[in-house]
Amino acid sequence: MTNCEAGIDAEEHLITSIEALWADRENSGVALAGGDDCAVLSSLGDREDLLLTSDQVVENRHFVRGKHPPAALGRKALVRSLSDIAAMGGRPWWCLQTVCLPAWARGRWHDEFQQGMRQAAEGPEVSGLALVGGDVSGGDRFVATVAVIGRLATGTALLRGGAKPGDFLYVSGSLGGSLIGLERLLGERRPDPGDPAVARHCEPSPRLALGRALRRVPATAAIDVSDGLATDARRLASASGVALVIEPSALPLFPGASTELALRSGEEYELLFTLAPESVPPADAVLTRIGHVERGSGVWLQSDERREPLGALGDAHF
Amino acid sequence: MTNCEAGIDAEEHLITSIEALWADRENSGVALAGGDDCAVLSSLGDREDLLLTSDQVVENRHFVRGKHPPAALGRKALVRSLSDIAAMGGRPWWCLQTVCLPAWARGRWHDEFQQGMRQAAEGPEVSGLALVGGDVSGGDRFVATVAVIGRLATGTALLRGGAKPGDFLYVSGSLGGSLIGLERLLGERRPDPGDPAVARHCEPSPRLALGRALRRVPATAAIDVSDGLATDARRLASASGVALVIEPSALPLFPGASTELALRSGEEYELLFTLAPESVPPADAVLTRIGHVERGSGVWLQSDERREPLGALGDAHF
Repeated sequence: MTNCEAGIDAEEHLITSIEALWADRENSGVALAGGDDCAVLSSLGDREDLLLTSDQVVENRHFVRGKHPPAALGRKALVRSLSDIAAMGGRPWWCLQTVCLPAWARGRWHDEFQQGMRQAAEGPEVSGLALVGGDVSGGDRFVATVAVIGRLATGTALLRGGAKPGDFLYVSGSLGGSLIGLERLLGERRPDPGDPAVARHCEPSPRLALGRALRRVPATAAIDVSDGLATDARRLASASGVALVIEPSALPLFPGASTELALRSGEEYELLFTLAPESVPPADAVLTRIGHVERGSGVWLQSDERREPLGALGDAHF
Repeated sequence: MTNCEAGIDAEEHLITSIEALWADRENSGVALAGGDDCAVLSSLGDREDLLLTSDQVVENRHFVRGKHPPAALGRKALVRSLSDIAAMGGRPWWCLQTVCLPAWARGRWHDEFQQGMRQAAEGPEVSGLALVGGDVSGGDRFVATVAVIGRLATGTALLRGGAKPGDFLYVSGSLGGSLIGLERLLGERRPDPGDPAVARHCEPSPRLALGRALRRVPATAAIDVSDGLATDARRLASASGVALVIEPSALPLFPGASTELALRSGEEYELLFTLAPESVPPADAVLTRIGHVERGSGVWLQSDERREPLGALGDAHF
């Protein structure tokens, strides 16, 4: 188990083949389907576009029974989708949850899971979010799927594909804490209750206010760090048709994190984005300039005179 | 395993307790959340409302590996939500699918599952439906969650709660075939390829055209028969605050089905609805008048001079 989406290539291939089955249909009010953090839906004849995203939390894949606090999983189930909305610069509006609930999870565990999800909707950035439906079914393993619908002014969604040579590359917050926290949670010893890395893993905050501020700048491209900086930077580079050059010495490291760990730690829910050189980054967020955009492709690590390609760092056990 | 939603009471209780956690939020553009087939979302400043629904197909709960053809499960995964859209009189527009895919299901099984889902989107009633996103993850058991967004003219959604004393009660199609087909599928012997009951179970058609026609009449209340006529009639009666009186001799039985079986067979995806006495039912559908609405509560079976309450007929193994 890692905290990045293991087996990403196999899953991206599957998603591509599913999309191919539906390719003739992708024309009815869909500004953008697949390939970005959310679908953008724009034929409402309105001043606003809708954002649509769905994610799941799966037993033995995203968590281990008895190791992860259920409230943290409930929070994660919602934050995964909220972070997708943040990466597009939107405001979350409605959510649906669909739960497959095995016998072992019924009662207190599931109550705490639900309370954790509800708590993830506290705070001014999420105050408009309403739960509007869903489904509960029995089953052998716990799976919770959350779909979130967001909205923003028509045509203003931040996309992955707009980075231009000459832009600067930024990331919010710090990196690596989520993976350190996960490893402590999964270890033999029960971690200290106040362990900051465990808190970082269990209580992520989607960067909704930052996403909306970046939409106003506007940023040229953005993505959330859900599968690790290395993987998500590769996606942004690929969607934009550019090379990203990262200075490892500039990376904002969580206390105790190595550069290598910061590059592969997923579930950080920070935003990775590019700004034109003349753009001013939003002032009220912790942001670090970690590199720049060049012509070319892929993601590169630049240290003094030396430049090397950033390989795939996530584990891949699909 | 049954083809109705087993353990309905336990699940409805869970859904109610989840909704209570979010009760303070149900005010932002939500005309109706929970309790009906879809949520109705109406603050788009537009001429149309959105319908939102989500359902899941769970291994060892809704199907048994090796018994159900994967294409039939793919069809079911989409039809469950399409039928909710039909019951509200809407037109399906966008869908998201989220799949938890164990190793055993990868390859041909999953390909056929996806093809079945895509085939459920064929036909003029579903031709506008686009797949706009989703997620694939590994896991121990197969779970597919499909969310569908539909639309209709503002304020015209068919609801469960509008039946009035004096209305007539109708159902479309015939009842009982889906449960007969399921029992043959799960039996020791492999059923004949052309078995009509198996085809009825594996290839349901959501009544989208009928739902839209009923919205124009308009019907006073409607629900789809997903968990069995007895259960779904109870829901309609409860939402409307009325008693439903059903004449068992009037029920349209699938060949070979008993009355008792027709009352508890789920996954029929027919529409159960009420019309004011002066309303004319749509002409281009197979419809049967099976009873009427009275003051009171609950669902009653009326044979000649005798009237008895219809108990819970679905199995409840949650």
